[in-house]
Amino acid sequence: MLIPDEVKQIANDIKEMRIRGAGEIARAAVKTLRITVQNSKAKTVEELLEELRTTAEIVINTRPTAVSLPNGIRFVSKKVRKELERNPSVEELKDTVDKAVKEFIVNSQRAVQRIGEIGSKRIRNGDVLLTHCNSAAALSVILNAAQQNKDIRVFATETRPKFQGHITCKILRDAGIDVTLIIDSAVRLYMNKIDTAIVGADAISSNGALVNKIGTSTVALVAKEARTLFFVAAETYKFSPETLIGELIEIEERDIEEVIDREELERIGNPKVLNPAFDITPPHYIDLIITEKGIIPPQAAFTILQEEFGWLSGDKKSLF
Amino acid sequence: MLIPDEVKQIANDIKEMRIRGAGEIARAAVKTLRITVQNSKAKTVEELLEELRTTAEIVINTRPTAVSLPNGIRFVSKKVRKELERNPSVEELKDTVDKAVKEFIVNSQRAVQRIGEIGSKRIRNGDVLLTHCNSAAALSVILNAAQQNKDIRVFATETRPKFQGHITCKILRDAGIDVTLIIDSAVRLYMNKIDTAIVGADAISSNGALVNKIGTSTVALVAKEARTLFFVAAETYKFSPETLIGELIEIEERDIEEVIDREELERIGNPKVLNPAFDITPPHYIDLIITEKGIIPPQAAFTILQEEFGWLSGDKKSLF
Amino acid sequence: MLIPDEVKQIANDIKEMRIRGAGEIARAAVKTLRITVQNSKAKTVEELLEELRTTAEIVINTRPTAVSLPNGIRFVSKKVRKELERNPSVEELKDTVDKAVKEFIVNSQRAVQRIGEIGSKRIRNGDVLLTHCNSAAALSVILNAAQQNKDIRVFATETRPKFQGHITCKILRDAGIDVTLIIDSAVRLYMNKIDTAIVGADAISSNGALVNKIGTSTVALVAKEARTLFFVAAETYKFSPETLIGELIEIEERDIEEVIDREELERIGNPKVLNPAFDITPPHYIDLIITEKGIIPPQAAFTILQEEFGWLSGDKKSLF
Amino acid sequence: MLIPDEVKQIANDIKEMRIRGAGEIARAAVKTLRITVQNSKAKTVEELLEELRTTAEIVINTRPTAVSLPNGIRFVSKKVRKELERNPSVEELKDTVDKAVKEFIVNSQRAVQRIGEIGSKRIRNGDVLLTHCNSAAALSVILNAAQQNKDIRVFATETRPKFQGHITCKILRDAGIDVTLIIDSAVRLYMNKIDTAIVGADAISSNGALVNKIGTSTVALVAKEARTLFFVAAETYKFSPETLIGELIEIEERDIEEVIDREELERIGNPKVLNPAFDITPPHYIDLIITEKGIIPPQAAFTILQEEFGWLSGDKKSLF
Amino acid sequence: MLIPDEVKQIANDIKEMRIRGAGEIARAAVKTLRITVQNSKAKTVEELLEELRTTAEIVINTRPTAVSLPNGIRFVSKKVRKELERNPSVEELKDTVDKAVKEFIVNSQRAVQRIGEIGSKRIRNGDVLLTHCNSAAALSVILNAAQQNKDIRVFATETRPKFQGHITCKILRDAGIDVTLIIDSAVRLYMNKIDTAIVGADAISSNGALVNKIGTSTVALVAKEARTLFFVAAETYKFSPETLIGELIEIEERDIEEVIDREELERIGNPKVLNPAFDITPPHYIDLIITEKGIIPPQAAFTILQEEFGWLSGDKKSLF
Amino acid sequence: MLIPDEVKQIANDIKEMRIRGAGEIARAAVKTLRITVQNSKAKTVEELLEELRTTAEIVINTRPTAVSLPNGIRFVSKKVRKELERNPSVEELKDTVDKAVKEFIVNSQRAVQRIGEIGSKRIRNGDVLLTHCNSAAALSVILNAAQQNKDIRVFATETRPKFQGHITCKILRDAGIDVTLIIDSAVRLYMNKIDTAIVGADAISSNGALVNKIGTSTVALVAKEARTLFFVAAETYKFSPETLIGELIEIEERDIEEVIDREELERIGNPKVLNPAFDITPPHYIDLIITEKGIIPPQAAFTILQEEFGWLSGDKKSLF
Repeated sequence: MLIPDEVKQIANDIKEMRIRGAGEIARAAVKTLRITVQNSKAKTVEELLEELRTTAEIVINTRPTAVSLPNGIRFVSKKVRKELERNPSVEELKDTVDKAVKEFIVNSQRAVQRIGEIGSKRIRNGDVLLTHCNSAAALSVILNAAQQNKDIRVFATETRPKFQGHITCKILRDAGIDVTLIIDSAVRLYMNKIDTAIVGADAISSNGALVNKIGTSTVALVAKEARTLFFVAAETYKFSPETLIGELIEIEERDIEEVIDREELERIGNPKVLNPAFDITPPHYIDLIITEKGIIPPQAAFTILQEEFGWLSGDKKSLF
Repeated sequence: MLIPDEVKQIANDIKEMRIRGAGEIARAAVKTLRITVQNSKAKTVEELLEELRTTAEIVINTRPTAVSLPNGIRFVSKKVRKELERNPSVEELKDTVDKAVKEFIVNSQRAVQRIGEIGSKRIRNGDVLLTHCNSAAALSVILNAAQQNKDIRVFATETRPKFQGHITCKILRDAGIDVTLIIDSAVRLYMNKIDTAIVGADAISSNGALVNKIGTSTVALVAKEARTLFFVAAETYKFSPETLIGELIEIEERDIEEVIDREELERIGNPKVLNPAFDITPPHYIDLIITEKGIIPPQAAFTILQEEFGWLSGDKKSLF
Repeated sequence: MLIPDEVKQIANDIKEMRIRGAGEIARAAVKTLRITVQNSKAKTVEELLEELRTTAEIVINTRPTAVSLPNGIRFVSKKVRKELERNPSVEELKDTVDKAVKEFIVNSQRAVQRIGEIGSKRIRNGDVLLTHCNSAAALSVILNAAQQNKDIRVFATETRPKFQGHITCKILRDAGIDVTLIIDSAVRLYMNKIDTAIVGADAISSNGALVNKIGTSTVALVAKEARTLFFVAAETYKFSPETLIGELIEIEERDIEEVIDREELERIGNPKVLNPAFDITPPHYIDLIITEKGIIPPQAAFTILQEEFGWLSGDKKSLF
Repeated sequence: MLIPDEVKQIANDIKEMRIRGAGEIARAAVKTLRITVQNSKAKTVEELLEELRTTAEIVINTRPTAVSLPNGIRFVSKKVRKELERNPSVEELKDTVDKAVKEFIVNSQRAVQRIGEIGSKRIRNGDVLLTHCNSAAALSVILNAAQQNKDIRVFATETRPKFQGHITCKILRDAGIDVTLIIDSAVRLYMNKIDTAIVGADAISSNGALVNKIGTSTVALVAKEARTLFFVAAETYKFSPETLIGELIEIEERDIEEVIDREELERIGNPKVLNPAFDITPPHYIDLIITEKGIIPPQAAFTILQEEFGWLSGDKKSLF
Repeated sequence: MLIPDEVKQIANDIKEMRIRGAGEIARAAVKTLRITVQNSKAKTVEELLEELRTTAEIVINTRPTAVSLPNGIRFVSKKVRKELERNPSVEELKDTVDKAVKEFIVNSQRAVQRIGEIGSKRIRNGDVLLTHCNSAAALSVILNAAQQNKDIRVFATETRPKFQGHITCKILRDAGIDVTLIIDSAVRLYMNKIDTAIVGADAISSNGALVNKIGTSTVALVAKEARTLFFVAAETYKFSPETLIGELIEIEERDIEEVIDREELERIGNPKVLNPAFDITPPHYIDLIITEKGIIPPQAAFTILQEEFGWLSGDKKSLF
Repeated sequence: MLIPDEVKQIANDIKEMRIRGAGEIARAAVKTLRITVQNSKAKTVEELLEELRTTAEIVINTRPTAVSLPNGIRFVSKKVRKELERNPSVEELKDTVDKAVKEFIVNSQRAVQRIGEIGSKRIRNGDVLLTHCNSAAALSVILNAAQQNKDIRVFATETRPKFQGHITCKILRDAGIDVTLIIDSAVRLYMNKIDTAIVGADAISSNGALVNKIGTSTVALVAKEARTLFFVAAETYKFSPETLIGELIEIEERDIEEVIDREELERIGNPKVLNPAFDITPPHYIDLIITEKGIIPPQAAFTILQEEFGWLSGDKKSLF
C-alpha cells in the first residue's frame, strides 16, 4: 500500500506544529482518513480498513500526548465499525468515512460557538463572573451572554507565569465588558462577590476530572468553599478516552524561565524551580460541563466517551 | 506641660517612616514614655499620668493603622494601671514606667529568635515545609530547625505581585537549605507532599483570624483540604486589640503598577485592576500560632490580648 | 391540514388549567398525537410528520414552563424517529404513534405506584422518616412501606407558606402511620433521630439537581450534615431536558399574600416580601433518586434524559 | 433573720412574670441584695453573708431556668468574695454590695446600646444582612449601623411559629431601613446574597454554643455553607455558668397551639406535634460574639464566664 | 421438559459451596445455560426460552444473595433478548447462547488480570499505597505495578476479626514488595503518607456505593479527610442490578466467635457482640472504580449496569 | 544539702514503675516536696527554694515523658511563687508547700469521681454511648449516669492490639449496663445510632488536641461525619504544658508482638510492623472536655494550663 503524499504532508505539519490548536489538529487528522479513501485502490473492505489503520497510526503518532487528535480518528472509526455490522461494500464504506469526516469537521468548527450559545443561557443578568487563564470556549459563553445584553462583570486572573489573563482582558474589553484584573492569589478575597467561575479545559478524564491550566483546581476549591458555581466549557473532543484504561495524565513541566530569569535565579542562590503547566480539578468541585452537545454533570464524562467514541475506545488497537 | 523635644523627634521619625518595621516602631514608641517620665516635673501622680497620656496620644496618632505601636504603649499602660492599685508615689510610678519600657524592648527584640526556638521543636526531621511571602518569624522557625541539623525541604511561593518569595529563597539558600520556588497557583498541586505550611502575620485579630499577605488564606484552605498542618509565627505585639471592640480591619489597596505597568494596561483595554495587600484567614484554618510566649491555638488570641494588654484594651481612651 | 377539534379542546383545557397535575397534563398531551393520526388524511410519511409537528407545537405552547408535557411529546417523538430509520409506511407510522402513546400513558399512570414499590424496599423496619411538603411519589414510598407492615415513624414539616404538610399528615394518619408535625425550622433539631429524609420533585435537571418546594435544599443540607440519607422520589417525566441545553430554571415568585396578609403588611411598615415557590438542591446532597424505572444516583439524570427522550432532546425543533 | 417585705415582693413579681425580660429580671434580682444589706441588722460579716445567701436562694428559685438572674447574683457574689480576702468590716461589705449592685445595673442597662456601638463597626457600607427572630441586641447593631448612614439592606425571616419577624420588620422599617420579609425556609435561597447573618442569644454555654430561637442553628449552617459571616449579639449576662459543671440545657417545649389550632389538628388526624422553643448552634458555626465588653470568638465564652462570674461559678453552693 | 443431570449437578455444587468464589460461581452458572441448549429438544424459540428460564431459575435460587451468579445469567439473557429482535431460528438462538456463554467465561477469567493492567497505570513510581482486607483485584493492581518495576511501598491493615491482612502481606512479600502491617485503627495516623488507598469489592450498587469488608468505609473517609486517592478494583460482575429496583443490601452478621471466644466472653460478663461482615462506602468517598472494561467514576455504576445487563435488569422476571 | 532517703526511695519507685498510673505518680511526686520541707534545715527562703528545686529535678527526671508528674510539681511551685510575692518567712513557706501538696492530693484523688458527677449530667435518659479503650474517667461518666437510673446503652470497641475493650465490657457489665462489643473497624457502621462518643485522655496539649489510644482520632472523625457528639474526660493534670513551648509529643512505638506473634510474622514473609501507642485528635473534632473543674471547650485547654500551672509553665527552669 502507498501512503498518499498529502497524508504525509499533513502528518508532518502536525508534528512540526505548523498545524496547531486542539481543533485544528483534530480536523487535519480526520481529513487524512478522507484522503486515504479517496486515493484508495482497495478491492476488499479488509484492504480498505488496513489502509485506514495505517494512516491512523501515522497520524496519531505525530503528537502522542494530544487529546483531540485520536478523538477525531476514533469518531470516524466508530462510524466505520458500526457500518461494518451491515456488511457494506467498499464504496459504501468509503462513503461512510467521507460522511463521518464531514460531520466531525462541521461539529468541531461549530463547537465553540455552540458552547457559547448553550452556556450563556446559564448566565443571568447582573452576574459577576470569574475566569482563569484564556479559554476560547469559556470566553464564548461570556461573550454570548454579553451579546444578549446581559449586564455582566468579569474578574480575570492574571494567570502566572505567562499572564494569559491579559489576553482575556483584551478580548473582553474589546467587547465592551466590565473587566477587573487581579493576581491569582486574590481569588479567594473576592469569591463571595462572584456568582459563577467559568474556565476552559485542556482535557476531561473519564471520571469527570478536569485537566487545565495550573491554578484551576484552587479556583474550584475556593468556589466550593463559598458556594459559588464552578462551570467548565469544553468541546467533546477534549474528553480523553485514554484515561479510561488507566493512562495517567502526566503533568508537563515547562521551562523555568517562564517563572524566573536566569540572572535573578543565580542571585537568589539557585533554588530549584518547578513550573507545572496544569493541575487536576476533581469532579466533585465541578458543577457543570458545558459541551457543544449540551450541559452535563462531570460524572457523565464517561457516558460522553462511550457515546462519542465507543466503549473501551481508549485502546488504540481497537481503531478500525 | 512641655513635650520633650526628643519625643517630638521620635514621633516625627515614625510619621515620616524614618523609623520602620513593626518591632522598631513599637520600641521607639515606648521609649517616648520613658523620656517623658525622665523629663517630667510632675508633682502628683495625676500630673504624671496626664503627661503620659499626652505623649501616648501624640505617638499613637503618627500611624493610626499600625498594630504594634499602640500595643507597645498599652503594655506599659497596663503595668502602670496595675501599680496604681497600690497608690504609688510619683517616683515609684516613674520607676514602673522605666521597668515596663525595658521589659517591652527586651521582649520584642528577642521575640523573633524565641519564636524560632519554640516553633522549631514542631519541625521534624525529614519534614517538607511551605512558606508564603517573606516573614522573619516564619523563617526563624525554619532556620532554627535547620541549625538543629534537621533534614528539611522548603517550598517557597514567589508571592505575586512583588515576588517576596525570591528574598525567602535567598535567605534559605544562604543557610544551605533545599528550596523549591513555585508560582502561587501551584500550591495545591504540591500540598499533598507538604507536612507543614508556615507563614508570618501582619496582625492577629481578637477572634484568632490572621491578617497576612494576599494569598495566605488560600494556602490555609488548601492545607486544610489536604490535612496538612498550617502554622502562624507571630510576635504577641502583632495581636490587635482594636478588633476587640469592632474596628474593622480594612484591607489596603496598593498601587496597581505592582501588578501591571501602564503601557501593558493600556494595550489590554484598561481593565480595572485591584491590588489588595492582604487577606483574612479564618481561625478554623489555623492549627497553631507560635508566639514568643509559647504556642497557642488561634482561639486563645483573645486571652493573649487580655493577658498582655488588659481587658477592653482596644479602647484607646482607657490608656493610663 | 385541519386540526381536529378534539385536539383544540384538549389544548384549551390544559391552557385553562381544567387539566392539571404533571401526570394528567402529559397524558392529555400525548393523546392529542393519537387523535391527530387517527384523524389524519396524510398520504405520505412527511405529511403525517408535519401534522404531528403542528399538533405538538400547539400543545407544547399551552404551558411553556411545564416539564412533563413536552416530555410526553418527546417520548412519542423518539419512537417515531427510530421507526423512521426503517422507512415505514404511513400506516406503520400511525401504528407506532398509537403504541407509543399507549406505552407512555400506562407507564405514567403506574409510575407513582411503581416508585412506591421500588422505594419502599429501601425503608427498613423501625425507620424514622422525614418528608417536606406533600408529594404523591414520596408518600407512595412511605405508604408502601407501611403496607408491608414495617414499623415506621414520620416527621412531616408544616411547609410554609401554604401548610401542605397538613395534607401530608392527614394522608399518613389515615393510613394509621405515626406522624409528628413540626415547623420547618425545627428540622435540624430532630435530624439526628431521622434515618432517611424523602421528598418529591417538581423537576430534575440534567446534572441531577432537584427543583422542589422551597426549603427542600435546606432539608438536604441538614441531612448531609448529620449523615442522614436523602432520597428523592420522581417520575422520569419530571426529568427536564430543557436544562440540557442551558435553559435556566427560573424560580417562580408567588403571591405574597401567601406569606402575610395586606393588613398586617401595612401594619409592619410595608417591607418587601419575597415568596419563591421552590429552590434548587445540588446533586451532591442527594443520595438516590427513586424513579419508576429503578433507583439511580442523581448524576445518572443525564443518562435517563438520553435514554428516555433522546440525545439533545432539549431542542424543541428536533421534535418529529 | 427577717426577709424584708420588699425582697419578697420582688421575688414574687419575678415568679409571677410581672417582672419580665432577661435584663429586667437580673436587675430586679440584684436589687434584692441591696435591700437586704440596707435592712440588715447583722453584727458580723458572717451574719451578713448568711442573710445574703438566704435572699439569693429565694430569688434564684423563682425562675430556676433563667440565665440572667443567677448571673446578676453571681456578679455581686464575686465582688463580695474578693472583698472578703481583705477582711472587711460589716459596713465595708455593705458598701461593696451596694457598689456591685449599681455596677451591674448600669452595665446591663447600657449593654444593648454598647453592643450596637461595638458591633456596628463590623457592618460595612453596602452590606446585606439577615436576622432571625427579634433580638434587641442584634437590632441594636443594625440600627447603629444605619444611624452611621451606612447603606444596608436587611432580610428578616418571619420566624415561625410566632412570627416575631414581623416585629423585626416594623422596628427596622420605622428606622427607614430597606427590609425584605421571607419565610424561614427561604434562607438558603438568598444566602449567597447575604454578607452577614446576625442573631441574638437566649444563652451562651461554656463551650461557646448558642442557645437561641428554633431555626437559628439552620441559619448558621446555611451561612457556613456559603462562607457568609454569622454573628451573635449577646449581653455577658446571657453566658450560662451552669453549663460549666454539666447542667444540660433543656429545650423547652411550648404550647402546640402556636403551631396549629385544635380544630385543624383534629381535621388532619391528630398527628403528634412538637414545638421546641429553641435550638443549639455549635460554636464552629459562629464567627463572632459581640458583647458589651468587646468582640470575642465563641471559644472565649469560657474565659468570659471566669472573668465575670469566677471559676466554677456554676456551682450554686459557692454563692457568698 | 427435562432438566439435564449436569445442570442439576452444578446447581447442587453451587448450593453446597463445592463451587465457590464470585467468579467460579458465575462461570459455572452460565455453563448450565449452554448445557441446557446443547441438550434441548425444543422445536420453537419459545420452547427454548422456556427451558432457559427454568434452568436460570433453578441456578439463581441456589444462592439467593450472590451478586455474580445472576449477573452471569443476565449477561447471556441480554444477548438472547437482543437476538430475539431479529426473529432467529432455534439453531441461531442456540448459537447465540453458546457464544454469550463463552464470552462471559473468557471475560470473567481475564478480568482480574485486566484490572491489574489497567489499574497499575494509575500507580506512580515511588507511590505509597494502602490496602484493607485481601482482594485479588486490588492486589492485581499492586502486583502489576511492581512487575513494571515501579518502586512502591504498601501498608496493609490486619483486618479484624479474621486477619486477612496477613494473607495480603504474604502475597505481597512473596512478590518482593515492601510491606508494613498495621492495626486497623492506625490507618488515620499514617494516611498523610499514603498516596492511594486501594480496595476490592463485594458488590457495587447502582448508585456507585461500595459494599466491602467492614472497615472499608472508614478507610475511605480517612482518605477523603487527607485528600488521599481512594480506588476500588471490581470486576463488572460485582455490580449489583438488584439494588436498581430497591432491594436493600443486607449486612450479614457473622459468628461472634470470630471476634471473641466463648470463655473470654463469659469472663467479661457476656456483653452483646455484633460482628457485621461488611459496610457501605458512599460514592462521594470513591475517586475511581477500576473494572476490566476501564476506569469509571462511581456514579457510572448505573451505566455499567445498563450496558452489561440491560435496563431494569434487576427485575428477575425479565430474564429471557 | 542532703536529699532525704524517703525522697530517693519514692524517686526510685517511680523510675522502676513500682509506682504507676498518672494519678499515683503525680501524688507520690508532690509528696517528695512535703518530705523535703519537713526535713529541711534551711535558714533562708532561698535555701529552702534551692532544696525544693533539687528535689523537683530529681523527681521529674525519673520519667521524662510523663505528663502528670511535672504537673504536680508545677501546681505546688505556682503556689510557692505566689506566696513569695508576700515575702514569707521560711516557716510560712513550708506551710504553703504543705497546704499545696494536700490540695493537689485531695483534688487529684477526687478528680475521677468529680468528672463522673459533672459529665454524667450531659448524658440523657435513653442515650446510646460509645467508648474506645478503657478510661477510668470516661467510665466514671457512664457509671455515674447509670447510677442516676438513666437508661443507657454502650458500644465498646475491642481496642486492638491489647483488647482493653474487654476490661471496659467487664466493668460496665458488672454495673448491670447494656453493653455491645464491636471491632474497631465497625464504629462507622453504628455511628448513626450513637448519641455521644466519650473517651479518656493520655494528655491534652495546649491547643486542645487530644493524645489518646491509637484509633481515638478515627472515632472522633467518624463522629463528626455523623454529627454525633464527641466528649473527652480528662483530669486537669493530664493537660501538658510542655506542648506550650513546642515540645513535640512523640508517639511511642510499642512491641510489635502485641500485634502479631513472631511465628506468624515469619510465616507471612516478615513484613514491617508498626505499633503506635496513640494518635492525636485535633481540637475541632472535640465538642467538650470534662475536667474535675468543669466542662471546657478544647480551645480552653490553654486557659487551664495558665490557670493551674502558670503562664510559660512549660519551661522547667521556671520551677520554684
